Amino acid sequence: MKTEHIGIAVKSLDISVPLFEKLLNTNCYKTETVESEQVKTAFFQAGESKIELLESLDANGVINKFIEKKGEGIHHIAFNVEDIYKEMERLKNEGFTLLSEQPKKGADNKLVCFLHPKGTNGVLWEICQDI
Amino acid sequence: MKTEHIGIAVKSLDISVPLFEKLLNTNCYKTETVESEQVKTAFFQAGESKIELLESLDANGVINKFIEKKGEGIHHIAFNVEDIYKEMERLKNEGFTLLSEQPKKGADNKLVCFLHPKGTNGVLWEICQDI
Repeated sequence: MKTEHIGIAVKSLDISVPLFEKLLNTNCYKTETVESEQVKTAFFQAGESKIELLESLDANGVINKFIEKKGEGIHHIAFNVEDIYKEMERLKNEGFTLLSEQPKKGADNKLVCFLHPKGTNGVLWEICQDI
Repeated sequence: MKTEHIGIAVKSLDISVPLFEKLLNTNCYKTETVESEQVKTAFFQAGESKIELLESLDANGVINKFIEKKGEGIHHIAFNVEDIYKEMERLKNEGFTLLSEQPKKGADNKLVCFLHPKGTNGVLWEICQDI
C-alpha cells in the first residue's frame, strides 16, 4: 500500500497554488474539477506521493464545511491499492466503516472510497485505485 | 523533495498501533521515544513514505494540547530534503516563519525544522534531513 496523496482543504486555489509552489519548490502540474464532489483540485508531486489542494465549488460542500469547523488544513490522506474492491472488503471485515458501499470516481482518474474517521483515530482515510 | 512521513496524534500507542496495523495491513516496524519532544512514536511503512503515530509522554506536551483542541488526527506532514540548512534559508527568504532558528534532532535519526502553520494554510509543515 503506497501513500498516494495528502489532501489539503483551502479557501482559494488562486491564493494557495502559488503558496504551495513556494513551499514545495515545484510547480503545480495539474488542476482538475471533480463535478460529482463539487471541488476544484490542484496537484503537486512530492516524491512518489502528491499534494492535492481542494477548493469547494459549492458554499455548502464538504470542503467548505470542514474549513468552517476546523480552518484550512490537512483534510485526508489517501493510499493506493491494487484492488479497491478487495481492500474495501478487507477493511469492512476488520470492522472499519466505509463511507460508500461502492467505490466512486474521484480526481486523477481513480476509483476512491473513504473510511469514517470515527473508526480511524480521527483521520479521514481514503483508498484509491487507478482506473 | 520527498514526502517523508505523515504524523498522526494519538492518545495511546497501545490502542492505535494495532488499529493502524489493521488499516495499513502491515506491522509497525519501529517505536522510538524522543526525549527532547517528550513523545513516543511508532512507525509504519506505506510506499516510500511513513506513517508516524505520536503519543505525548507529558500531559502538557504539544501532542496532548493538539488532541485537547482538535481531537486525535493528522498532526503534521514532513518532507525530506538533502540540505536542511539550505532549505531553511530558502523558506525564510520566501517569507515563511521557521519554528526554530536551528534544526533540532527529531525521531528516526533526522534533523528537523517546522514551519508556523499560520503561513502554510494551517498545515504544520516539517522539513527533515537524514543525519
